[in-house]
Amino acid sequence: MQLGMIGLGRMGNGMTERLRGGGHEIQTYDPKVDSTAGSLEELAQQLEKPRAVWMMIPAGKITEDTFQQLLGILDEGDTIVDGGNSNFHDSKRRYDQAQQKGINFIDVGVSGGIWGLEVGFCLMAGGDDEPVERLEPILETLAPEDGYAHVGPSGAGHFVKMVHNGIEYGLMQSYAEGFEIMDHSEYEFDLHQISGIWRYGSVVRSWLLELLHSAFEQHGSQLDDIAPYVEDSGEGRWTLDEAIKMSVPAPVLAASLFARFASRDEIKFSAKVAAALRNQFGGHAIRAVEKAKAGPDPR
Amino acid sequence: MQLGMIGLGRMGNGMTERLRGGGHEIQTYDPKVDSTAGSLEELAQQLEKPRAVWMMIPAGKITEDTFQQLLGILDEGDTIVDGGNSNFHDSKRRYDQAQQKGINFIDVGVSGGIWGLEVGFCLMAGGDDEPVERLEPILETLAPEDGYAHVGPSGAGHFVKMVHNGIEYGLMQSYAEGFEIMDHSEYEFDLHQISGIWRYGSVVRSWLLELLHSAFEQHGSQLDDIAPYVEDSGEGRWTLDEAIKMSVPAPVLAASLFARFASRDEIKFSAKVAAALRNQFGGHAIRAVEKAKAGPDPR
Repeated sequence: MQLGMIGLGRMGNGMTERLRGGGHEIQTYDPKVDSTAGSLEELAQQLEKPRAVWMMIPAGKITEDTFQQLLGILDEGDTIVDGGNSNFHDSKRRYDQAQQKGINFIDVGVSGGIWGLEVGFCLMAGGDDEPVERLEPILETLAPEDGYAHVGPSGAGHFVKMVHNGIEYGLMQSYAEGFEIMDHSEYEFDLHQISGIWRYGSVVRSWLLELLHSAFEQHGSQLDDIAPYVEDSGEGRWTLDEAIKMSVPAPVLAASLFARFASRDEIKFSAKVAAALRNQFGGHAIRAVEKAKAGPDPR
Repeated sequence: MQLGMIGLGRMGNGMTERLRGGGHEIQTYDPKVDSTAGSLEELAQQLEKPRAVWMMIPAGKITEDTFQQLLGILDEGDTIVDGGNSNFHDSKRRYDQAQQKGINFIDVGVSGGIWGLEVGFCLMAGGDDEPVERLEPILETLAPEDGYAHVGPSGAGHFVKMVHNGIEYGLMQSYAEGFEIMDHSEYEFDLHQISGIWRYGSVVRSWLLELLHSAFEQHGSQLDDIAPYVEDSGEGRWTLDEAIKMSVPAPVLAASLFARFASRDEIKFSAKVAAALRNQFGGHAIRAVEKAKAGPDPR
């Protein structure tokens, strides 16, 4: 079927390629890519009604701006899909706003990263039955067999994707801590070898473990050229926000998120506070901060 | 090659079957199974020197007793393999003790559970090169392709298996918390369906997720007949013991272990303490414990 893809980054590009390989007619728009439509208006003109456009762009302002523009361009019966990692509260609001104009809005959680082109993307769709069913030829081409489901009404797709990513943080931190323990042990383990054998027959085998094995292969067993600095892109925070709203204990997902924050914390003020207190009550030695080398005043 | 298997429980039985299928001659001993040797002595007599016996029995007293008996029965050049989940400190001590009698001792971490018969068992071997190399026909039949490695000297096999299981706790608890958040949400998710699609193309796909999907299939999306009580068998505790000895932070593995303890804690004294303190300083209401129903004194 026909679809307008908005955003040809790593994900949108792979998805467009996979869809075209599956025989669909994909029109595209990305202001950074010359070969695409010159504007959202032009993209809309390239599609037959009822139109379907898929936003595959970063969550936040760019998604909101694009969504608002699309509301002004599209007509009743058309469908907007948000395949990015938007917060599900935003997706519910956008659904309501689109509905007032008779436009359909579907939130689709997309997992698979840069490997999705080859393997297929796991898809979690939220929204009304009719537009989701109309999009199914697209969803089924994008996903591997049995890797797609319509998980619930508006917001449900992004909710499930949010939790998916929260779990991902926990899985990653579990491996991370285990490999650090092996790295600090009395043995001189070959961590590349261990991540390798665990891929076959072990209880901890997973796709993330396969990626870790590839990372050891590319960067060596000490990952020498990788800085110990871990970013996050919001879904782990939102997972905890929701857990807190619902009074659900999630200590491991929380600790995984906080470990990422700690990795980025150069000042470590909490460690300074704890060291100061040990010194105050017990006279325990504190380590002085090394002063910057003497030299000409940079000002 | 020839091997004596001690212990025909779920693991030892599957391993014996897989080895025989691979053309090896396996003699067996299990006091609970009639068709096996009548004693460890009889098992030893059924094997040609240099002999190799594999203990596949629970860690702790039964392993220690069997090991000590074997030291009295076996001769110089023979090999004892411990395939159970023994603490690596015990394995190092047993290696030293065996060595004094010229007997080889190998510690092998075995992962794969009841699925290993079909898939193969992931094997992590620790010990001296010569006896490990002599055992390789056995190890290679037991493991899937690329699922076996000699990871280091005495104790290394059980150390790696210990960390493997520590990681396993973290992975399990990550999924557990994510599914609880979905279960408590405003949506009526079909958790069986979600665990199903995540198996294909998603970043969180893993063997444990496949098992969770099977569990939802067998027990329903609410796991109604499964009590919320999680046992542990030691390796998670030891992983934390080692992390603490080496001053390695492992907050997620610790929280995973503590979540299991909490699942078994009927009294929840810490919650009573916290409730009492809120009441003391802020006059916040406390919930009274329901008294047992009035009735005849059971004494």
